[in-house]
Amino acid sequence: MNRTLNIAVIGCGRIGRIHAENLATRIPGARLAAVADIVGGCAQEVADQFHVPKATNDYHELLADRAIEAVAICSSTDTHSRIIQEAAAAGKQIFCEKPIDYDLTRIDAALSAVKKAAVTFQIGFNRRFDPSFAKVRQLLAAGGTGQPHIIRIPSRDPEPPTLEYIKVSGGIFLDMTIHDFDMVRFLSGSEAEEIYAIGDALIDPAIRQAGDVDTAVVTMRLKSGALATIDNSFKADYGYDQRLEVFGSKGSASAGNHAPDQHMLMDAAGVHQAKPLYFFLERYTEAYVLEMRAFVEAVLNKQPPPVTGIDGLQAVIIGLAATRSLRECRPVKLSEIR
Amino acid sequence: MNRTLNIAVIGCGRIGRIHAENLATRIPGARLAAVADIVGGCAQEVADQFHVPKATNDYHELLADRAIEAVAICSSTDTHSRIIQEAAAAGKQIFCEKPIDYDLTRIDAALSAVKKAAVTFQIGFNRRFDPSFAKVRQLLAAGGTGQPHIIRIPSRDPEPPTLEYIKVSGGIFLDMTIHDFDMVRFLSGSEAEEIYAIGDALIDPAIRQAGDVDTAVVTMRLKSGALATIDNSFKADYGYDQRLEVFGSKGSASAGNHAPDQHMLMDAAGVHQAKPLYFFLERYTEAYVLEMRAFVEAVLNKQPPPVTGIDGLQAVIIGLAATRSLRECRPVKLSEIR
Amino acid sequence: MNRTLNIAVIGCGRIGRIHAENLATRIPGARLAAVADIVGGCAQEVADQFHVPKATNDYHELLADRAIEAVAICSSTDTHSRIIQEAAAAGKQIFCEKPIDYDLTRIDAALSAVKKAAVTFQIGFNRRFDPSFAKVRQLLAAGGTGQPHIIRIPSRDPEPPTLEYIKVSGGIFLDMTIHDFDMVRFLSGSEAEEIYAIGDALIDPAIRQAGDVDTAVVTMRLKSGALATIDNSFKADYGYDQRLEVFGSKGSASAGNHAPDQHMLMDAAGVHQAKPLYFFLERYTEAYVLEMRAFVEAVLNKQPPPVTGIDGLQAVIIGLAATRSLRECRPVKLSEIR
Amino acid sequence: MNRTLNIAVIGCGRIGRIHAENLATRIPGARLAAVADIVGGCAQEVADQFHVPKATNDYHELLADRAIEAVAICSSTDTHSRIIQEAAAAGKQIFCEKPIDYDLTRIDAALSAVKKAAVTFQIGFNRRFDPSFAKVRQLLAAGGTGQPHIIRIPSRDPEPPTLEYIKVSGGIFLDMTIHDFDMVRFLSGSEAEEIYAIGDALIDPAIRQAGDVDTAVVTMRLKSGALATIDNSFKADYGYDQRLEVFGSKGSASAGNHAPDQHMLMDAAGVHQAKPLYFFLERYTEAYVLEMRAFVEAVLNKQPPPVTGIDGLQAVIIGLAATRSLRECRPVKLSEIR
Repeated sequence: MNRTLNIAVIGCGRIGRIHAENLATRIPGARLAAVADIVGGCAQEVADQFHVPKATNDYHELLADRAIEAVAICSSTDTHSRIIQEAAAAGKQIFCEKPIDYDLTRIDAALSAVKKAAVTFQIGFNRRFDPSFAKVRQLLAAGGTGQPHIIRIPSRDPEPPTLEYIKVSGGIFLDMTIHDFDMVRFLSGSEAEEIYAIGDALIDPAIRQAGDVDTAVVTMRLKSGALATIDNSFKADYGYDQRLEVFGSKGSASAGNHAPDQHMLMDAAGVHQAKPLYFFLERYTEAYVLEMRAFVEAVLNKQPPPVTGIDGLQAVIIGLAATRSLRECRPVKLSEIR
Repeated sequence: MNRTLNIAVIGCGRIGRIHAENLATRIPGARLAAVADIVGGCAQEVADQFHVPKATNDYHELLADRAIEAVAICSSTDTHSRIIQEAAAAGKQIFCEKPIDYDLTRIDAALSAVKKAAVTFQIGFNRRFDPSFAKVRQLLAAGGTGQPHIIRIPSRDPEPPTLEYIKVSGGIFLDMTIHDFDMVRFLSGSEAEEIYAIGDALIDPAIRQAGDVDTAVVTMRLKSGALATIDNSFKADYGYDQRLEVFGSKGSASAGNHAPDQHMLMDAAGVHQAKPLYFFLERYTEAYVLEMRAFVEAVLNKQPPPVTGIDGLQAVIIGLAATRSLRECRPVKLSEIR
Repeated sequence: MNRTLNIAVIGCGRIGRIHAENLATRIPGARLAAVADIVGGCAQEVADQFHVPKATNDYHELLADRAIEAVAICSSTDTHSRIIQEAAAAGKQIFCEKPIDYDLTRIDAALSAVKKAAVTFQIGFNRRFDPSFAKVRQLLAAGGTGQPHIIRIPSRDPEPPTLEYIKVSGGIFLDMTIHDFDMVRFLSGSEAEEIYAIGDALIDPAIRQAGDVDTAVVTMRLKSGALATIDNSFKADYGYDQRLEVFGSKGSASAGNHAPDQHMLMDAAGVHQAKPLYFFLERYTEAYVLEMRAFVEAVLNKQPPPVTGIDGLQAVIIGLAATRSLRECRPVKLSEIR
Repeated sequence: MNRTLNIAVIGCGRIGRIHAENLATRIPGARLAAVADIVGGCAQEVADQFHVPKATNDYHELLADRAIEAVAICSSTDTHSRIIQEAAAAGKQIFCEKPIDYDLTRIDAALSAVKKAAVTFQIGFNRRFDPSFAKVRQLLAAGGTGQPHIIRIPSRDPEPPTLEYIKVSGGIFLDMTIHDFDMVRFLSGSEAEEIYAIGDALIDPAIRQAGDVDTAVVTMRLKSGALATIDNSFKADYGYDQRLEVFGSKGSASAGNHAPDQHMLMDAAGVHQAKPLYFFLERYTEAYVLEMRAFVEAVLNKQPPPVTGIDGLQAVIIGLAATRSLRECRPVKLSEIR
């Protein structure tokens, strides 16, 4: 890797800014060449902050710029499939935030375009790069836990999204649990066979009226024979709760929460420590850097990316199956979805 | 409590010996007056060890002895219902190991006899007395976690029972998970509404041939709205894994494993600590003492026992529902069982 | 070991009662044959509670009783040396609470008598039998930490003794730190060479007026070259703080506090766990049983006891050196004391 | 703060590069305007990497550049005092790596120059900004532990410096323990009164021949009455061991090590977790950013810096006292040094 990848960020919302900052400061081999956002001065603001040479409201400009070799698609989900196809047609290497889409036909169209253009395509399942989760995967791969039998993932947000967001989010399983579905696949190395989901609006009845649940438990049977259980909540009062465990024939590997510090206070009331880091920006700071480094390295070294379009597709299929299971109150086979 | 309760132990197998030893040495207010076991010299051996005045092969002798006020029934499960009825008819206060029976009719008969005789009846759900589990319950009762939303119980044995035992055990849900079902009821203060179970023989195919599974994940919807998930394995290489967590609207209370010591070794390979205590005899040593103390106190103080016949019945109903769910591959409502 | 050791407890104060209960109920191979206490009905009360055949106000009766083979001396420190000599002359095997005495001449007299009578003599340094501390010793012995370089012991009581007690206790180093001095010897397998002590009455000025300090830090150079540091306080608001660490050429082995349960509460204020067990009766419950088992086994198997008279002597010598160091504000060589 | 501070880094060794990278990418309000290093192309290399407009072999150029408002002095210790004086004379705001010097006269000269020029002067005691240590300080300040009684600091490096470095380092107390001395002052809010040090070369006899020790234990009496104990080693096989505890009248606040991940592996051999982060670059990554942010903010807001010249001076005085104590085998009063 003795050259630099010119990359543009499309979409300068919360996640786009993270990638922009990382690309500008913490990704060896990358040069943040441009940023785009349809909203007013957003792109310019980010460009100013991180000394980016080019800002635009129209990402087509960036696709037309031959000096730009790669794009990080961070725009709203409904635009992903279209931009992927356009970027692929323009020969850009593509990093895309999850999910590709909630519609399998549009995902297919995007993945076909990527395949036809033979460009690198990496989906933003950032948690695979979290040091603790990656370490669990590594222990598994090294055989430390033997054959996986049970995968358990408690995954809870510190606060619910807005009701406006919930109404268009695709539902808890496609918006939130999708990360956990990917984690089950990542850890087990196996595809899901059948899924069963229960859930309710225990935090806020308005969430039910908005058509979603805020608390859910999902169980899965995997093709390998392993079983998985995920529990989700939109609101953990103590912060972002992101743990997981793989129990296997030779032992158990787990990942605990990350805290902002390692203090311990012992007093007459008990022993006290720091809460988990507040939310994904805090917990996955390093994971965002590492996933982008991996993308840049994959492109520069012409190697397959560590997270693929199939990974993006499969997690959506599981999410659709979970959604149907919740609605129909029965276990749903993945083969019913596709 | 300025008097002593004369109590007899019926059945001197592994668990009977534990109760005999505890009654002989660690239960203020109790006097171990007699022991019985149908097998050869078992009762006499226990009597010798713990200075018990009377040993017999026929427990009817003890029921006929008016000086004996209470019995601890530790014989094989198939004898529980009959002995409960006989003991109740004889006016004895009754502590009985779990389960009462696997057959609802026989449970009903036992509970009716107890009710008619108006004797104290406590079922041996020892885990309720485990200091960590009891502390979680206490935190919940004090409101520390708010309204329970999700209950998670990983519960794994260090090694499978023998195949002979498995064939007559009633299946994993009635033999092993029954403790976890009771724990869900104990912690949530709510009854189960519906249950779904998946499982497989991942450890040993012979267990499947014996008609059971060795690995299972169960999810439950409770009447309170809360969701529960339990995972079980017959074989955790690192020892007895007995944890639980109640996640609620204001926080999460959990109980971790207990270790034989609190050492920590830091070396070039990592940071190392002790494994969990090996099995239930080690982990629940104190719980066995505390449950018997509670029984003796309840009798002497003429107060209701902390674990009742209904608790014994309900856990079996849940176990039967889980068994049916596994067999029929669908969620089963408790109302289908009774 | 197919026989039973008849043992008597002399002194039925707090520690005597613990040994009496353990001998009556939890020490295989021992039979608690008698108890003695000079105070009114104390001995009888203990005898009643634990079904002991004999109680007396005059321990000489027990020494004269040929059926009694061993004694556990739990009387006040000032009587230890005399009773040891009498018991040795009577041919009894001897377990004696720490310290033997604060006066080296009286210790010598006691140890000479023991040697001449060739009876087993074990001193009550119970902490050596604590599962966590014993595990650290075992890791060291197995070479897990390499050659010890630094030994660190934070050792803090939950509340100060009474001023009356402090006035006759011999001072913090002979009364409290003596356990830590023994632990340094036990863990390092080396004798102390030189000691330096600083201390102050930071908790209560009345303690200074009583001639003692309530807070102290001691450092030691050992003959092996290792360094040790102990810190003590009479009052830890969070309970009994009993930790230690051995840092060596290949790693570090440490022992943490023991808690009454393994709960964890996560809420908006933080992550909370149980405080350490309150005081020595709670923390060292198991250690008291294990040390007495070891004594009984040593006697029955005619093997050397795990803690010897020399151990009792050496800890006192270190305590005297620390006391002098504090008074004279300079490092004191052990050879200055003896 | 609506302006940017132009700052130059003098000295591009290991620590200079860290500050250069942080200033280039992670310090809002700062602009890395220039870098200097006397060695060949070092400055240019750093300039290339972080897009710094100016590089030079002669830092005097930077002092003469009126656009440069501040300097971070990261050159070798023997140059600190001189550069501080020159920078102060040039009116630059000054951040200087620890220590100012090992010679009190040269420190005085530097501090006088700073005072006369009335520029901001911050010394690089980075550990004060470590999130765990800062949290302990914050808990103390909030009264959570009451009045400090005992401060304990185990502080161990993963591997010794080279013998060449050891020969010119000023000795373990001025080079390594100096951070811990500062931490004692920072946490206690009190000055040291008297110090006693023991130490030896237990890791490598060549270190003794080089005139230093590799293992040391230091105890201190503070003016507040509190006691402190520090233990150091040049070589912890398990990585950088940086913990501390403040025990006070109401409780104990401590900081544990930081690990690269929060994994836990349970297998037949035990429970295993990650080792501490390897060394200061890994452990104090965030602390280096935070201390520089604090400096930049102090300058821009014209507020006093959080670490002052007096802090730099006092730590050296304690280090000199410790060095004398080790050599003379006696407690040394700080007043003997100055």
